[in-house]
Amino acid sequence: MKQDILKRKLRAGIVGGSQGSFIGAVHRIAVELDGQAVPNHLHYRVSRSFLEHSIHVVCDKPMTFDLEEAQALVGLVEQKKLVFALTHNYTGYPAVRQARHLVRTGAIGTIRKVLVEYLQDWLMEPVEHTGNKQALWRTDPTKSGMAGSIGDIGTHGENLLEFITGLRIAAVCADLTAFIEGRQLDDDANMLLRLENGAKGVLACSQIAAGEENALSIRIYGSRAGLEWHQMEPNTLLFKQPGKPLQVLRTGMPYLSDEAKATTRLPAGHPEGYLEAFANIYRLAVADIRRVEWGESPVGGYPTVYDGLRGMQFIAKVVESSQKGGIWTDF
Amino acid sequence: MKQDILKRKLRAGIVGGSQGSFIGAVHRIAVELDGQAVPNHLHYRVSRSFLEHSIHVVCDKPMTFDLEEAQALVGLVEQKKLVFALTHNYTGYPAVRQARHLVRTGAIGTIRKVLVEYLQDWLMEPVEHTGNKQALWRTDPTKSGMAGSIGDIGTHGENLLEFITGLRIAAVCADLTAFIEGRQLDDDANMLLRLENGAKGVLACSQIAAGEENALSIRIYGSRAGLEWHQMEPNTLLFKQPGKPLQVLRTGMPYLSDEAKATTRLPAGHPEGYLEAFANIYRLAVADIRRVEWGESPVGGYPTVYDGLRGMQFIAKVVESSQKGGIWTDF
Amino acid sequence: MKQDILKRKLRAGIVGGSQGSFIGAVHRIAVELDGQAVPNHLHYRVSRSFLEHSIHVVCDKPMTFDLEEAQALVGLVEQKKLVFALTHNYTGYPAVRQARHLVRTGAIGTIRKVLVEYLQDWLMEPVEHTGNKQALWRTDPTKSGMAGSIGDIGTHGENLLEFITGLRIAAVCADLTAFIEGRQLDDDANMLLRLENGAKGVLACSQIAAGEENALSIRIYGSRAGLEWHQMEPNTLLFKQPGKPLQVLRTGMPYLSDEAKATTRLPAGHPEGYLEAFANIYRLAVADIRRVEWGESPVGGYPTVYDGLRGMQFIAKVVESSQKGGIWTDF
Amino acid sequence: MKQDILKRKLRAGIVGGSQGSFIGAVHRIAVELDGQAVPNHLHYRVSRSFLEHSIHVVCDKPMTFDLEEAQALVGLVEQKKLVFALTHNYTGYPAVRQARHLVRTGAIGTIRKVLVEYLQDWLMEPVEHTGNKQALWRTDPTKSGMAGSIGDIGTHGENLLEFITGLRIAAVCADLTAFIEGRQLDDDANMLLRLENGAKGVLACSQIAAGEENALSIRIYGSRAGLEWHQMEPNTLLFKQPGKPLQVLRTGMPYLSDEAKATTRLPAGHPEGYLEAFANIYRLAVADIRRVEWGESPVGGYPTVYDGLRGMQFIAKVVESSQKGGIWTDF
Repeated sequence: MKQDILKRKLRAGIVGGSQGSFIGAVHRIAVELDGQAVPNHLHYRVSRSFLEHSIHVVCDKPMTFDLEEAQALVGLVEQKKLVFALTHNYTGYPAVRQARHLVRTGAIGTIRKVLVEYLQDWLMEPVEHTGNKQALWRTDPTKSGMAGSIGDIGTHGENLLEFITGLRIAAVCADLTAFIEGRQLDDDANMLLRLENGAKGVLACSQIAAGEENALSIRIYGSRAGLEWHQMEPNTLLFKQPGKPLQVLRTGMPYLSDEAKATTRLPAGHPEGYLEAFANIYRLAVADIRRVEWGESPVGGYPTVYDGLRGMQFIAKVVESSQKGGIWTDF
Repeated sequence: MKQDILKRKLRAGIVGGSQGSFIGAVHRIAVELDGQAVPNHLHYRVSRSFLEHSIHVVCDKPMTFDLEEAQALVGLVEQKKLVFALTHNYTGYPAVRQARHLVRTGAIGTIRKVLVEYLQDWLMEPVEHTGNKQALWRTDPTKSGMAGSIGDIGTHGENLLEFITGLRIAAVCADLTAFIEGRQLDDDANMLLRLENGAKGVLACSQIAAGEENALSIRIYGSRAGLEWHQMEPNTLLFKQPGKPLQVLRTGMPYLSDEAKATTRLPAGHPEGYLEAFANIYRLAVADIRRVEWGESPVGGYPTVYDGLRGMQFIAKVVESSQKGGIWTDF
Repeated sequence: MKQDILKRKLRAGIVGGSQGSFIGAVHRIAVELDGQAVPNHLHYRVSRSFLEHSIHVVCDKPMTFDLEEAQALVGLVEQKKLVFALTHNYTGYPAVRQARHLVRTGAIGTIRKVLVEYLQDWLMEPVEHTGNKQALWRTDPTKSGMAGSIGDIGTHGENLLEFITGLRIAAVCADLTAFIEGRQLDDDANMLLRLENGAKGVLACSQIAAGEENALSIRIYGSRAGLEWHQMEPNTLLFKQPGKPLQVLRTGMPYLSDEAKATTRLPAGHPEGYLEAFANIYRLAVADIRRVEWGESPVGGYPTVYDGLRGMQFIAKVVESSQKGGIWTDF
Repeated sequence: MKQDILKRKLRAGIVGGSQGSFIGAVHRIAVELDGQAVPNHLHYRVSRSFLEHSIHVVCDKPMTFDLEEAQALVGLVEQKKLVFALTHNYTGYPAVRQARHLVRTGAIGTIRKVLVEYLQDWLMEPVEHTGNKQALWRTDPTKSGMAGSIGDIGTHGENLLEFITGLRIAAVCADLTAFIEGRQLDDDANMLLRLENGAKGVLACSQIAAGEENALSIRIYGSRAGLEWHQMEPNTLLFKQPGKPLQVLRTGMPYLSDEAKATTRLPAGHPEGYLEAFANIYRLAVADIRRVEWGESPVGGYPTVYDGLRGMQFIAKVVESSQKGGIWTDF
């Protein structure tokens, strides 16, 4: 019987990735499933429908239009005991898994400072007025929600930070800006962070940073050592010990953690990229779907509905902080 | 009828990628085909069998065990008018296509100097005696042929050089070494090159270069400008004009050539890697298979049986040069 | 007569660079003068004494112990019409001069976002209790003033930002931390900035960033293009135009501005470093001292007493913002 | 009496660095001595004259016009027991000293492969016909000697290789080219090397490599680990151990050897460059001059007349190999 399940075509709904969006193509490349793909404001409706029909869900981020919808999805997932995977795909990179491993095993010591950046330039001109569909809905509060760059890329930064450090953001002081005249949602944001353990941080995201492609990076400084990772060179992780030579860790190497190895397909020096990281999220989610179908407990290892809820809370707090003039706002 | 062909499951044989070899997995990841996968000395037998049964072939490099087998395959492919794709996969990278474009359009001027390297360290210890199956057949003349590192990685360098420059190597002066005691085939080679247009070059390959992963790189210097590409950071191409700022070209950007764009799946800043480059070769080969099945002429754009023949000629000349003490040997 | 002045040994006092401090050695290497060298709290006394005796001054930063002393020095310099050079030496790098040139000539467009970092790790342990004299006075409010890392390195970041952009910081929201138990002054700071033209920014400095040596960097994003410079690779300046290849500008190249060329000694590819940048400040200051001695007007081009005053204002505002819980504080 | 010598102005002649040449300025910057500065063909005459008058010599490379003159200088230096320092200045970099230390202490194991490059582009056009005095004499056999790029930069590569590895080149196979029509001396060279211990190597130098500034680099691969250093980023040394994280060694760090520390002036992260490396050679030579004046034995640590002789032998062998069509030539 288990064989049947292993062989059988699994049903799962994909939420996010509209026609013509590259992320839609990514979903379709990363797995062999047809996608129902739409802007943020439809994520909830489609996800709920899938869940109500007892269909597991793989959903794009941000998970919903607002916090209320996110909370509703959490309730539904818990009630239906279904798999809900959120494609915070950057957590799928082996080097990101290795970074989390180094934090968990104490190699970094007590985390003191975290610097996260996500810089792009594709909205530095008013492209939403020149037929760019992706820009159109992303800058439209009725489709994107209360946040622009914060929802689109800032949540990736927040998720990456909490995924690697295992620490939660306790408070934020945010300064959001829409640099393009007439744009209703933020295209740039600078944020000061305070983490639950007393660590401090900065999260800067921008979609008007001239000349930047997709520059997501994180640097973590602890009482023992530091870490640095750049999404655009994803197979490299820098490990920084005071007074010792900088170490350049590389995916595919024998010294990596089992988890990092498990998300790597090729030997060292054979670059893996965005699609492979995205596929890692799917691989983990599909494994859990099989488990659940077979009556076993899900194992996780991928972002879930709770990460989606966390992201919506982050958006709400950041926007609140900025709207009040850039004041410290507790989570 | 054409629809049928487009829908119909195509038949093609994969030659190369033994059980347990990562390249076998790559073949299976990069396409949805079952693989017949064996060491070099069986390439010919399997390829010939496929061709004789009128089955198109996708074959790993080096194409055959020796030059005679390579010539026989050329004859068979020409006679049967079948598609024969050789997986010199590094030519599948968008940045490599862009490099060739810059040469072809005259941006580099007359090519004067070419520096090619392919450095690894996985054979720096006698691993063939410690159960490494990949090392075992690669260092065995009865399975690998007359060359070790030259056949395994040197031919990639030769193919990349001729693919990008459009120039053929006219003469070589080679110094091959087996640094590991008892090893019968070269694990290191340094070669001086003279190209057909009077350009000079160096090709250095090694599988005993301590600390190197899979460091394939090429630098081209012409009368107008220079180029530099590193396989381990495949989405970046350096364009060097004298007296002007160094330009860093990146895959996914609008200024790239149509051919480079056609082999790119994602927007700039979303890294593509080895598997995508490998899949590009398959994509081009499969398109030709469809054309041939439909009675059209193949278009090419991927390495073929002629590249395989060229590679075997290269191996023969390099080994001859070195065995005679490192003398200049004409092609 | 002018010849005499040109030949004659000029008198100038050096303020800053205590015995055993590397900066003291730098001063003595960068010029051929003996130094009177002491912690911040003595800068004022010594500078005032020099000025009162009509001796030109080259002073280390931060200029004084507090804002009042800084204002007093401004008055004295204006009254005595003497040269007062402040060694914000990072402004002496050719690439920094080129960055300012690109901003001034409009290549960057309207500046929207600025990211400045100055990260070190030398205070990540309580070294002030283990005989490190440099750490001892820098962490002592009675010698260093109201700020630790802000005064020591944060002011370099502030000065570099205003030097290159030509914009003044209008408001700051600062979060200062002393991560080492018992340390009385900040060893880490994250700051949100608002510039006078509406641009936004982040300034992060730290002396507890594990594994960082002296990582001062600045990134500027405008409506047309972006800039990036790293002090630890000072001969390189990145120029980022949207949709175009990244340009890597290098000191010593013909395309640089006259001002960048004037602060370069060697041809491209012959690295110049910290000492040369420091000497450039001296060279410019000494030229002005000669002018003033000769009765001409000073030309400037180096940080002056007004930059010192600005730095002390910056320190005061940052500390005020942080002490009030991290609120926005106008300049 | 020793005090007198320590205080007294030492006499030493500088040979090399013509008026208008940057190297002449470098000599004058790097030390406080007046220079007699002339092309290669006058090095011998001036050096001999200094030596005959019992004046210590600091001479630019290549040391002489031909091998005979070099041997004559060796005899004169030995007879007069004077200090003769040759400014192979690249050996003055701390990272180069650290590289030699790692080889000497066995960290690299038995050296197997060495890759040395020195790439420039300043002669890629016939600038000798357009008033470039530096190009004029360097491309004139009556002033430069039998070699062009080999003498000007190739000898730096040869000296760096032998300095770091402690191994001597046993044989060379060279392919020299003059790519500019009418140019009488080589502007490009590719060389295969065999070292005395059985190691193999490549030395590629060029002055027509479009877009290259002053790209001197060396990579060394041994039975235990590898090394990589680039002159244009001189404060970084890469240490490569198989199966372990790449280590980035940095000047100014506590883990460096005493010799590397002795040639470093500033803390880590404060870049030192070409002038500091050049001054290190002078510092070591001047210390020996003081010793000799005081009747002590010289200690060395800088390139001497024997390195100059070695360089002239290298030039002779390389030119012989190339003129005979690129055959292996023993030293």
